[in-house]
Amino acid sequence: MKKIALLGATGSIGIQTLDVIRLHPEEFSLETMAFGRNVEKALPLIKEFNPALIVVQDEQTKSQLEREIDQPVLAGAEGLIEASVQDRVDVVVNAVMGSIGLPATLKAIEAKKTIAIANKETLVTAGHLVMEAARRHQVELLPVDSEHSAIYQSLNGEKKEDIHKLIITASGGSFRDKTRKELVGVTVEDALNHPNWSMGAKITIDSASMMNKGLEVIEAHWLFDIPYDQIHVILHRESVIHSMVEYVDRSVIAQLGTPDMKVPIQYALTYPDRLDLPMTKQLDLEEIATLHFEKMDFERFPCLRMAYEAGRAGGSMTTVLNAANEEAVQLFLEGKISFLEIEQKIEKALETHERIHNPDLLTILSIDEETRQRVRFQLN
Amino acid sequence: MKKIALLGATGSIGIQTLDVIRLHPEEFSLETMAFGRNVEKALPLIKEFNPALIVVQDEQTKSQLEREIDQPVLAGAEGLIEASVQDRVDVVVNAVMGSIGLPATLKAIEAKKTIAIANKETLVTAGHLVMEAARRHQVELLPVDSEHSAIYQSLNGEKKEDIHKLIITASGGSFRDKTRKELVGVTVEDALNHPNWSMGAKITIDSASMMNKGLEVIEAHWLFDIPYDQIHVILHRESVIHSMVEYVDRSVIAQLGTPDMKVPIQYALTYPDRLDLPMTKQLDLEEIATLHFEKMDFERFPCLRMAYEAGRAGGSMTTVLNAANEEAVQLFLEGKISFLEIEQKIEKALETHERIHNPDLLTILSIDEETRQRVRFQLN
Repeated sequence: MKKIALLGATGSIGIQTLDVIRLHPEEFSLETMAFGRNVEKALPLIKEFNPALIVVQDEQTKSQLEREIDQPVLAGAEGLIEASVQDRVDVVVNAVMGSIGLPATLKAIEAKKTIAIANKETLVTAGHLVMEAARRHQVELLPVDSEHSAIYQSLNGEKKEDIHKLIITASGGSFRDKTRKELVGVTVEDALNHPNWSMGAKITIDSASMMNKGLEVIEAHWLFDIPYDQIHVILHRESVIHSMVEYVDRSVIAQLGTPDMKVPIQYALTYPDRLDLPMTKQLDLEEIATLHFEKMDFERFPCLRMAYEAGRAGGSMTTVLNAANEEAVQLFLEGKISFLEIEQKIEKALETHERIHNPDLLTILSIDEETRQRVRFQLN
Repeated sequence: MKKIALLGATGSIGIQTLDVIRLHPEEFSLETMAFGRNVEKALPLIKEFNPALIVVQDEQTKSQLEREIDQPVLAGAEGLIEASVQDRVDVVVNAVMGSIGLPATLKAIEAKKTIAIANKETLVTAGHLVMEAARRHQVELLPVDSEHSAIYQSLNGEKKEDIHKLIITASGGSFRDKTRKELVGVTVEDALNHPNWSMGAKITIDSASMMNKGLEVIEAHWLFDIPYDQIHVILHRESVIHSMVEYVDRSVIAQLGTPDMKVPIQYALTYPDRLDLPMTKQLDLEEIATLHFEKMDFERFPCLRMAYEAGRAGGSMTTVLNAANEEAVQLFLEGKISFLEIEQKIEKALETHERIHNPDLLTILSIDEETRQRVRFQLN
């Protein structure tokens, strides 16, 4: 029985993690859970899974929830940590949105919990701290992102020194068939219409801007300890091949499947074993019939270029990249800036930041906060 | 240093095995080698690799070779065994053509040699004996066929009980775009023109008739101990995905690459490690751009249907299937029968054979010989 702390329980990954737990009650139990403010969505889940501790985003939500349930409720970042480090927990599924998941992840690693990481911002903003902590405490970080899970599965039984390159596939997002000119007038609604995957709003916008792929490149760099020159992105509109590893003998191992996040979520929970997923559609290549691959265009997708540049520059640059992107996407979702202004905001934030080499956690949190303020309040 | 016995040194797989040995002289040495009658092709190889023992097909070739070299030369099936079981040998690469490789494989297993098996007829004709011997002597059978190597690589680090099905890809061979009507007048030359792979004559004809895929299904059944219902064949004309494994969680792992047999040959020799293969072209999916998949048509390719039927019937049926096919292909290559008569010969041989349950080696060898005689001399 694996005992799970689920951070981000009412989000897209959180809900699907609960689906997986529900499918295998003899294998998994939900011990603690955290969510933001959506009490209505959380209440039936709390009743169903009966976790011992619940964490919410703020005091107001805490008060509201406490009127409804008997379990202890905590609020804020300290609560996230408490939910992660409890003795009753084996695995922390970090599926919160944005870099808010970072301190809890670090504390969970110190407490020697296995980490199933669906929150790529944690690694983008502070990969060097997280990986160093994982090494020091000999903790496994298991990816939940479909691309990283694909790479992880393709690395199964292989040796790191035999890797020649990682090949991350990109569907291209909701605007893949638009020229840069056609992006000028796009709306939030257009951007949220992803062709293959059903995901949360932030990641769907990131997919449309290709920043999602940029964050994944940085995440892959940290997770697999591979230089940026050996991480390649390829446009593959069907999202059937979720990613690949090329080895020194030119053999390429790939993981394929239907676009169902339950597969990588469950794999992170069952690794190195697998369990049945009877409701998930089997991949039918005869029906799909054709897979397409195209070269990635870095001029068409400047967010991907910026991500590579920030990653290669290192230090605090990826913290700035991530914070500027989170805030700019939020401004776009609020209708305050246009889609193309997202990349402009990020570019400006990166240009005006003076890189700090090897920043510690406090420095990262302060750069993160400062970048958000600059992006939000310099509305040009 | 792995010390290699190479059976079938002047064939397509043999020559490429020597290429691999040549690339890594610090890893591999050629200890013994066997070939058929092509002394001219073999002589420079013997001079280059200086094996301690050479085996040829017959006494005449033996006399001819003995005039040219100093090493001991043996002839025939006993020689194949002697080349395989010597103390100096670690790995036997069985790349001879047809079921002649069977007794040497069994003796090599008894002598606890690792077997790199490029000779699928060995498993098709006597899979139950070979696998039982491998289990008893705890010997590893490493596949060299690109499809089986792909499956083997896709199984790396996984558990057998987690396999849902094997998916073997088929290029379709040289006649894939012809209707059955258009097959009536095809020539040997047409059949030998394979679209993707450069291979020997027998396997290229088998590819055109789809019997090659049928033999591979039977080989996969034995090698991976998977029921026929869980072995699926799919038409994939680009031969980029070499084969796949679907697991119980619907995750599919695949191995991809350019069509270069040196990759699976070397993998069988280096497993579980990998080594550089610098001259092999990297897979460039951006250049290939499109991969196609189609349902396999069992009426268009009756040889594949017969292979599944013989495999499911079991016992001596696959021995008959293989022997009838080997002889019929030889008759076609000799210009004595038409392409479509290959399948008719096989069908007739299967129909008129009375199945023997669990045949021993002598029974198999006698059924093999008897089937060949029947196919050759009942020229209708």
